[in-house]
Amino acid sequence: MARWEPGAAERLQQAALELFATRGFEQTTATEIAQSVGLTERTFFRHFSDKREVLFHGQQVLVEAFLSGVDAAPPEASPIEVVAAALRSAASFFPDEHRSRSRARHSVIDQNPALRERERHKLASIAAAVADALRARGVDELAATLAAESGITVFRIAFAQWIREDEHRSLDDIAAQVLRELLTLAATAAPKIPG
Amino acid sequence: MARWEPGAAERLQQAALELFATRGFEQTTATEIAQSVGLTERTFFRHFSDKREVLFHGQQVLVEAFLSGVDAAPPEASPIEVVAAALRSAASFFPDEHRSRSRARHSVIDQNPALRERERHKLASIAAAVADALRARGVDELAATLAAESGITVFRIAFAQWIREDEHRSLDDIAAQVLRELLTLAATAAPKIPG
Repeated sequence: MARWEPGAAERLQQAALELFATRGFEQTTATEIAQSVGLTERTFFRHFSDKREVLFHGQQVLVEAFLSGVDAAPPEASPIEVVAAALRSAASFFPDEHRSRSRARHSVIDQNPALRERERHKLASIAAAVADALRARGVDELAATLAAESGITVFRIAFAQWIREDEHRSLDDIAAQVLRELLTLAATAAPKIPG
Repeated sequence: MARWEPGAAERLQQAALELFATRGFEQTTATEIAQSVGLTERTFFRHFSDKREVLFHGQQVLVEAFLSGVDAAPPEASPIEVVAAALRSAASFFPDEHRSRSRARHSVIDQNPALRERERHKLASIAAAVADALRARGVDELAATLAAESGITVFRIAFAQWIREDEHRSLDDIAAQVLRELLTLAATAAPKIPG
């Protein structure tokens, strides 16, 4: 048996998504996922600590995509402009050819409370990492937290729209539109909120 | 034995917070909570379905506080102004004399991943309820979601500040300041984000 199967992680992820969708997440075992693509349980566990990790495998890469967007923003960029750069960088992590896979993943997560909670926790961790990166640029505590949390809200709403069956725009375009809508909403309210 | 103990729910909540803080949430049983204030396990379960519910007992009242703020906003109010009214209404649910109790509750939740997840879920439910109420006022789908989610972000950040040991301002004052900061951040970025 080969100690390393080229492309095994991707094949296992694809197989897992199909089995989770047809049989349900709870009813699918790591062994079944491996066997369905002619791999062994041992190969599965060389790539993933458990079947849940198949769904959250890209998390660290996504965090880094947000953070490299923050790093790429010019020094004079305002906190929201930095967040806009982070969103563009994160969106490039989800090209259109991944849309149906992302939709399948999201559908599995949506049907399982523990997975939904894990997904919420993932997004909260990304918001915290972006807020830290903003503070490291000299943005004050409150502005950093607010800008990062708003960025994650925009990402979450844009992502939900991107994976809709009738949606054809790129995630980048949708996220830019959602962010602009947030800025427009804020601009409409600003003069009337008591200072 | 009296079938109804006046003030029993409040006494049980207070006792539970003290036991959770000193012994830990996992190590405390419903029976111990009841016995520590001279009540029976049966009385405990007349008020709460389990010990976790002691911590989330006020959730429905909090949702209603947000929604009555939405209802009280004038018809011409913009989505963010409606959210500002909802925040004021929700803040009135947390007078300063509840600050130390809220701090104790939050400290218990913060130490337990399952309780943190339940708290995140609670806030997500409130955001969804506020977004529904905005849509019922005729606000479009995206604006309603964004305004409601931003309101909950402001609430969460303001609440975390309100329960800090060195904080003396009211939750209402802090939430108003956090919301203004969000609007200021948006106003600074708006002209530079490409349309």
